[in-house]
Amino acid sequence: MPRDVASDSLDDAPLHTSREWGLSRIVAELRESREELHRTRHPLGIRELPSRDAILKIVNGLRSALFPTHYGAPDLTDESVDYYVGQTLENTLRLLHEQIRRALRFLPEHRDTNEAELTARAFAIAREFGTRLPAIRALLVSDIKAAFSGDPAAQHITEILLCYPGVWAMTHHRLAHALHELGVPLLARFINEIAHSLTGIDIHPGAAIGPSFFIDHGTGVVIGETAVIGERVRVYQAVTLGAKSFPSGNDGMLVKGNARHPIVEDDCVIYAGATILGRVTIGKGSVIGGNVWLTHSVPPGSNVSQGKVREGAGADAPRNGFNNGNGA
Amino acid sequence: MPRDVASDSLDDAPLHTSREWGLSRIVAELRESREELHRTRHPLGIRELPSRDAILKIVNGLRSALFPTHYGAPDLTDESVDYYVGQTLENTLRLLHEQIRRALRFLPEHRDTNEAELTARAFAIAREFGTRLPAIRALLVSDIKAAFSGDPAAQHITEILLCYPGVWAMTHHRLAHALHELGVPLLARFINEIAHSLTGIDIHPGAAIGPSFFIDHGTGVVIGETAVIGERVRVYQAVTLGAKSFPSGNDGMLVKGNARHPIVEDDCVIYAGATILGRVTIGKGSVIGGNVWLTHSVPPGSNVSQGKVREGAGADAPRNGFNNGNGA
Amino acid sequence: MPRDVASDSLDDAPLHTSREWGLSRIVAELRESREELHRTRHPLGIRELPSRDAILKIVNGLRSALFPTHYGAPDLTDESVDYYVGQTLENTLRLLHEQIRRALRFLPEHRDTNEAELTARAFAIAREFGTRLPAIRALLVSDIKAAFSGDPAAQHITEILLCYPGVWAMTHHRLAHALHELGVPLLARFINEIAHSLTGIDIHPGAAIGPSFFIDHGTGVVIGETAVIGERVRVYQAVTLGAKSFPSGNDGMLVKGNARHPIVEDDCVIYAGATILGRVTIGKGSVIGGNVWLTHSVPPGSNVSQGKVREGAGADAPRNGFNNGNGA
Repeated sequence: MPRDVASDSLDDAPLHTSREWGLSRIVAELRESREELHRTRHPLGIRELPSRDAILKIVNGLRSALFPTHYGAPDLTDESVDYYVGQTLENTLRLLHEQIRRALRFLPEHRDTNEAELTARAFAIAREFGTRLPAIRALLVSDIKAAFSGDPAAQHITEILLCYPGVWAMTHHRLAHALHELGVPLLARFINEIAHSLTGIDIHPGAAIGPSFFIDHGTGVVIGETAVIGERVRVYQAVTLGAKSFPSGNDGMLVKGNARHPIVEDDCVIYAGATILGRVTIGKGSVIGGNVWLTHSVPPGSNVSQGKVREGAGADAPRNGFNNGNGA
Repeated sequence: MPRDVASDSLDDAPLHTSREWGLSRIVAELRESREELHRTRHPLGIRELPSRDAILKIVNGLRSALFPTHYGAPDLTDESVDYYVGQTLENTLRLLHEQIRRALRFLPEHRDTNEAELTARAFAIAREFGTRLPAIRALLVSDIKAAFSGDPAAQHITEILLCYPGVWAMTHHRLAHALHELGVPLLARFINEIAHSLTGIDIHPGAAIGPSFFIDHGTGVVIGETAVIGERVRVYQAVTLGAKSFPSGNDGMLVKGNARHPIVEDDCVIYAGATILGRVTIGKGSVIGGNVWLTHSVPPGSNVSQGKVREGAGADAPRNGFNNGNGA
Repeated sequence: MPRDVASDSLDDAPLHTSREWGLSRIVAELRESREELHRTRHPLGIRELPSRDAILKIVNGLRSALFPTHYGAPDLTDESVDYYVGQTLENTLRLLHEQIRRALRFLPEHRDTNEAELTARAFAIAREFGTRLPAIRALLVSDIKAAFSGDPAAQHITEILLCYPGVWAMTHHRLAHALHELGVPLLARFINEIAHSLTGIDIHPGAAIGPSFFIDHGTGVVIGETAVIGERVRVYQAVTLGAKSFPSGNDGMLVKGNARHPIVEDDCVIYAGATILGRVTIGKGSVIGGNVWLTHSVPPGSNVSQGKVREGAGADAPRNGFNNGNGA
C-alpha cells in the first residue's frame, strides 16, 4: 500500500488493487479476530518481543566462544584465540542483555517494573550467566566424551562436535537451563526450540541433566520440564520422559510447574522409542528396552522390555490386516 | 565453463579443466539418464516449477498478516497495524497468484489450458483464499488456546505463538488445507513439507482437522491425506494416523485418493508413539495410550494401552540380549 | 575488543567493558577448559576443518547437476542444459576437492602426509566420485519411482522430487555413501547430518542400500553404519535399524566398525516405529508391523506384529494411570 493513501481509511477509499483482492474486508475481519484474542489474553497491550534472529546470533556466538577451534573464525592461532573469545563474548553478552530485558517483561512480577530497574536486572542476569560459561563448557566436554565412548561409529572428537545432533541439542540445553535457573524462562525456551527444530530433540529448559549425558541419533526425544537425570545416562532416538496426568486447580486451569516427569538415576540406558511417564524413578544402572511404555518406578539394576511379539508366515497371519502393496 | 566455449560441443573441444575431471563423459551419461526418466514420466517437457523461496515468502507473509504483533514489523502501533496487514496481504497474495498459476499447470485438467485462462483461474483461487483468512485465523486462535489449556508447561500465549512447533505446523496446515480444497494440491503439499522439515510434524494437506487441535512436542507426528479429526483433540509426538493397505487397480497401479486414514472423534487424546492405521473410527472421548498399534475401530470412551511389559533384575533377564556398554 | 588493546594481556589491562562483564576471568577459565580437552584428544593441534557452508554448496550443486530441470537454473532449455550441468559440476567438484583435502587430514594414515600428496589424493577421489554420478542418479531415479508406486498420495514425479523428504535424504545418502566408500568418512557423515537436520532421517553413510528404496514420511528413521538393505524395500517413519550391544576391546574402548546392524533382504516392508536391532536378517518379502521391537532373525515371508493391546471402557481401566486433562 503506497504511502499517499496512508491517511485514508481502508474502507472509504480502497486502492484499485485492494478492491480487487477485497482487502478492506479481510483486514477488518482480521482486526476483529485479533481484538478478541487480545481481550482475553493480552490485557497489557503490545510488548517488545524477543527476536529469533538475535537469539540465533547469541547461541552461535556462545558456541564460538566455547569451542573456538571448531566454531570460531577459521584462522585462529594459539596467540589470537583468547582475544577472539573475549571479543565474541562481549558482543554476545551485550545482545543477550537486551533479549533478557525483553523477556523479563513477560514475567508477572516485572509487568510494572520501571525501565532502568529492568535493564539493571537484565544486566545482572547476563553477567552472572557469563560467569557460568566455563562450568557449562566442562559439562559439554563430559557429554562429548560420553558420545565418543558410547558410540562405536564415532571416529574422533571433531566428528562429534560438528556432526552429532545430541551434542548440538545439549549445547543449547545447557545454556538454556542456566538462563531458566536465572529467571528468564521465555528466552530459555526459545533457545531449546531452535535446537528442537534442527535436531528433533525437544528438551524443556527446566530439565536437570547431569554430566556425561549422551543422546544418540536423537530425533523424537522429548524430556519434560521437571525431569531429573543423573550422571552417565544414555538415551536413544524417540525416548520420551513425559508427564502422565495433569491435575487441575480449583479454577479448572491446569496446575503449572509441579514435579510430574521421571527421575532417571545414574548409569541408566534407555533404548529407542521407550516412553516413561510420570514422577517415577528409574533406579541406578537400569536398562529400559526399546518401545517400552512405562508408568511406574523400577528398582536399581532393572531390565524392562516390551512384551513378546507375534509372528507367523505371511499366509497364516490373518489378524495383521495389512499387506505389502509394493512387494514381490 | 567460460562463455567463449559455449558454442563448442563438450565432446569435441573440452577445456583443460573439463578433461581433468572427465566432465564430458559424465555430462553425456547424465543426459542419457535424464532422457530415460523424462520419456516415462514427463511427456510434456519442462514446465515452470513452483519456487520454494517464493512459497517460504508467502507463508511468512501470511503469518505476519495473521499475527502482526508477533510476526509482523517490530514497531507496529494500534494505528498502523491495519495498514501493515493490508500491504503485507497485497504483496503476499500477488506472490501466491503466480505460484498458483505454476502449480495448476501440473494438474491433468490444466495441461492444455491457455495462459490467460490459467492466470484468471489462479487469480480467482488466490482471491477466494484471501477471503478465508479470517476464518483460518479463528481456527488457529482455537489451537493456541488449546495449547495453553493442554500443556502445564505453557506460560503465556506469546510463548506458544513463538515457541510451539505444533502451532507452527498447524499454521502451515490450515493455510495448506484451504489451498488443497481450492484445487492447488502441489502448492499445499509444498507448504506442509516446509513445516515438516522445521517441526518434524508431517500433515498431509488433505487432512480435515477440527478446531482446538493441540499437537504437543510433535516430532514424528504423521497425519494422512484422508484423516478426519474432530474438535478438541490432543495428540503427542510420534503419533501416526496412517493407512493400512493400498489396493491396486486393474492396471496394477495404486488406487489414489480413497478414504484410508482414521477418523478421530471429538475430545480424544492420543499419547506419544501410538500408531493408528486404516479407515477406523476412534470414538468420542477415547484415550489411546503411548506406543499402541491399533488397526480397528474403538467405541466412544475407550481406553487402549499397550500389553504388559516384561521386567527382571539385570542378571535374570537372559532374553534381553543387549548390554549397557557405557554404564557402571 | 578494539585493536589497540590487542597487545595488552587481558588480565593486566582489561577494558572498562571487559571489567564490567568479568571477561578476563571467563576467558582464562575457558582457555583452561580447552587445554584440558586438547591434551587428551587433539595431540596434533588445530587443523583446518571442513566447512559446513562449503558442504551445503557442494550438495546443492550436485543436486542441481543431477536434476537440472527441478533444481537447476529456472530458464534452462534443451540446448543449454548440458552446459549448465557441466559448469555446475566443474565448480562443485573443485569445492569438493578442497573439502576432501581437509577431511583426509583427520584420518590417522594421513596425519603426516605432505600437502602436495594430500592434494593429489583428494583430487583423485573427487575425480573418481564424479565418474560415479550417473550411476548414483540411476539409483535415485529408482528411488523416485519406488515412491511413486509405493505412496497412494503421490501425484507426480515433480511432487516427489520437490516435496518428499525420503528422496531428499536418499540423495544425500547416495552421494555420502560413495564418498564413504572412497575413504572420506568425515565428509560423508557431514552430508548425511545435513539431511538428518532437514528431514529427521538419520542414515549413517556406511549403510549399503539397494535400488528402489522408499522411505515414507521419514521422521525418526535411523539406519546404522553396517546395515545392508536389498532391493525394493520400503520403510516408514521412526523405523530403526540399529545395533544391540557394543563389545569392548582389551583396552576397554568400544570396538569400532564391526558388523552390528540388520540385513534386510529384498521386498521387505517395515512399518512405522519398528525397531530392529543387531546383526539379524529379515528374510526376503517379510512384513514387520509398526512399533515392533525385534532382536532376532526372521525367515523369508515372515509377518511380525506387536502383542495384543489391552482395551477397556474408560471407567474400567484402573491400570492405565493417565487421564484426559483436556477432554469432555
